Amino acid sequence: MFRQNFEDELNDLHVRFSEMGMMVNEAIYKSVNAFINHDKALAKEVIAADKHINERETDLEKRSFEMIALQQPVTSDLRMIVTVMKASSDLERMGDHAVSIAKSTIRVKGNVRVPEIEQVLAEMATKVKQMVEEVLDAYVKADIKRATDIAAEDKNVDAFSNKIYQMCVAQMQADSETIVGAMDYMLVDNFLERIGDYVTNICEWIVYLDTGKLVELNSNAKEDNVL
Amino acid sequence: MFRQNFEDELNDLHVRFSEMGMMVNEAIYKSVNAFINHDKALAKEVIAADKHINERETDLEKRSFEMIALQQPVTSDLRMIVTVMKASSDLERMGDHAVSIAKSTIRVKGNVRVPEIEQVLAEMATKVKQMVEEVLDAYVKADIKRATDIAAEDKNVDAFSNKIYQMCVAQMQADSETIVGAMDYMLVDNFLERIGDYVTNICEWIVYLDTGKLVELNSNAKEDNVL
Repeated sequence: MFRQNFEDELNDLHVRFSEMGMMVNEAIYKSVNAFINHDKALAKEVIAADKHINERETDLEKRSFEMIALQQPVTSDLRMIVTVMKASSDLERMGDHAVSIAKSTIRVKGNVRVPEIEQVLAEMATKVKQMVEEVLDAYVKADIKRATDIAAEDKNVDAFSNKIYQMCVAQMQADSETIVGAMDYMLVDNFLERIGDYVTNICEWIVYLDTGKLVELNSNAKEDNVL
Repeated sequence: MFRQNFEDELNDLHVRFSEMGMMVNEAIYKSVNAFINHDKALAKEVIAADKHINERETDLEKRSFEMIALQQPVTSDLRMIVTVMKASSDLERMGDHAVSIAKSTIRVKGNVRVPEIEQVLAEMATKVKQMVEEVLDAYVKADIKRATDIAAEDKNVDAFSNKIYQMCVAQMQADSETIVGAMDYMLVDNFLERIGDYVTNICEWIVYLDTGKLVELNSNAKEDNVL
């Protein structure tokens, strides 16, 4: 084995990080599809695949740590490695939320279903998936402008979340038979909203990557809107 | 100014991290008290204080980064600094959840209250506060055994969460007037449960600090219990 130079190692780190992002994106997408289609086999697939996401985080952590210890990078190179360490933790937790959605799917038994709410959940999941794809692309291109735009899009996720909340409340008030099912919808909604928050975190790491500054993009936007 | 040696800087970093933890702990405690006592003035205090938590994260980030770049530590010293960088992000997010609870408090208008559920929420908050205090202490002492025990306690938080869920469902089924209020209880419950998850993350960093291994303590315990 020849010793790779620093640039190659750094490039390799970025590629592996992006791959991890794609694994997480797939997990999110599949978990929501499984929930909506009551597809327990697909849900189990998401749960089984999570170990690969965790392994990838461990791999990225190890590589990053060794690069810092052995190559002693400074300024922007060091920042790039630190960012991978931080953002891979966020990706891993997004994967955990996909697993939580998958586990909700397996748990559900004979709830009264409300197709209109499931439809909005599916739209919300599509939006979140799109944001995850965009943030991975913005990360690869270190595109701050785009990262800021993507973080701003989180308000759309929060708008879906508010809509689902309103629909669930109305449904529960109209028909107490739907309370348990509506609480499950709220649970999935909540995990999707958290995933949206993690996308915003990664947007913040992209800004950090370029500027070295920790910013709070879109902080608590949901609550601010409601006040 | 004389130049501090590395040990002093590292010690300083730990002290500042612990102080940040105490700021966050205070925010969590006050936010739940504010919610239960409908104390909007206290809620505003939590929201105003959050900027100090954010500033402290930025300060820790900057110090950690400079220590790595200038002192080029290796192995356990490097790991200690990386851990501060990671765990301070977790603390900052715990603070954001306290702000979310505070904002819920300000938003609430004339909901029908259910004192029995508020009582359980208060007990849950006390448990979470205790875990936050314990994890900060375990961190300072780099006590892996204790960190593992604290992570295991998260199942108690999840038990509170399940209890509140059951109480809210029963309440909503019995009296549709309480649906909006019960959804608010679920929201606060959810933020507390997330804070408990962050405590587990910090427990994982304590293990990492000592062993260099990323472990998943207590992963998705809640869902596993339900399955």
